[in-house]
Amino acid sequence: MTKIIVSGFSISLDGYGAGINQSLINPIGENGTGLHNWLRATQMFHKMIGKEGGLEGIDNDYAIQSMAECGAFIMGRNMFTPERGEWSDSEWRGWWGDNPPYHAPTFILTHYPRAPIEMEGGTTFYFISDGIISALEKAKALSNGKNVKIAGGVSTVRQYLQAGLVDELHLAISPVFLGSGEEMFNDINIPALGFVVAKRDITENATHIILRK
Amino acid sequence: MTKIIVSGFSISLDGYGAGINQSLINPIGENGTGLHNWLRATQMFHKMIGKEGGLEGIDNDYAIQSMAECGAFIMGRNMFTPERGEWSDSEWRGWWGDNPPYHAPTFILTHYPRAPIEMEGGTTFYFISDGIISALEKAKALSNGKNVKIAGGVSTVRQYLQAGLVDELHLAISPVFLGSGEEMFNDINIPALGFVVAKRDITENATHIILRK
Repeated sequence: MTKIIVSGFSISLDGYGAGINQSLINPIGENGTGLHNWLRATQMFHKMIGKEGGLEGIDNDYAIQSMAECGAFIMGRNMFTPERGEWSDSEWRGWWGDNPPYHAPTFILTHYPRAPIEMEGGTTFYFISDGIISALEKAKALSNGKNVKIAGGVSTVRQYLQAGLVDELHLAISPVFLGSGEEMFNDINIPALGFVVAKRDITENATHIILRK
Repeated sequence: MTKIIVSGFSISLDGYGAGINQSLINPIGENGTGLHNWLRATQMFHKMIGKEGGLEGIDNDYAIQSMAECGAFIMGRNMFTPERGEWSDSEWRGWWGDNPPYHAPTFILTHYPRAPIEMEGGTTFYFISDGIISALEKAKALSNGKNVKIAGGVSTVRQYLQAGLVDELHLAISPVFLGSGEEMFNDINIPALGFVVAKRDITENATHIILRK
């Protein structure tokens, strides 16, 4: 059964999922990279960027799980590019090089239509300009019966949550304060959406929270 | 040296320090009591309410520490009473019975002046209607060289934080979501205020965060 999931999604202790002023050198916004310290330390992440080493253990298990069983991905355009407005840089094909870590159809929400981009390793970027429901239907249709992951960023996750379309969340709360940025929970009522804390795992680098309905 | 501290202050995973609709039967607002599960389980809390038993360990150590070395307390009026507006119930002397757990001068911020109330066990409630700086000066003067604790609620803690008057915080993040209530961090920039995470301790019932400058 296809589940709609959010997984490996990092937030700060003060509830921000990204810093302010996203840019080419600060893809997660200013001071945002600390959010992913738990992930960057893992063996999974090391492998993903072609490096040796990295930590095994709970964080690594969650990191692996966060990309497993996903047949399609949905992300907001700001997760794909620092550019805003009309597409001007036709060479930009995401932050991830020729072989992105998705290895599956990946749907990018945007107000500006664009032709799909087929990457190496099974990732194809589709640009969806007719809304989150349309993106979800297309993602489900191409997910091969596996899960559809709402990859981010904060605004995209919030939109799918507010529409009641998310079945399960794994949040990784990093032991950092950002002070400003994109707020995760403002006007998102987790209990009213029917979620309960199903599991909680704690490491030096994160508190992992599993929310299920 | 007198430090201005916030200690044993509970917040939810979604950043609320209290639920909505505080009332006589919901002193911490609706669904707010889950915030203090870590505290209510401790031996310290059991002793405080005259009961046997309770857990020892990390939560208990923090609970004890949260009331130790405090020579004076400051709280918002909503922490003292569910009543709003002019004082109408002259019999109301707080939630805590004849012998409140403060055992020290306790300053209550209010827009409505009222004569002090001397309780058993060393607690005297003073009602301060000329602002947070005035309350802090009076609390310092009567703190006997010990710490002044900003006891709560959320609004009061936020006011002292925003004024740059807090030296140290101990936050206890409970593994619950409230969904709505009084937001702790909205417009409070912890890094910009100069705080760093000095310590982090994790138990089944809470994540304890010590913030120092």
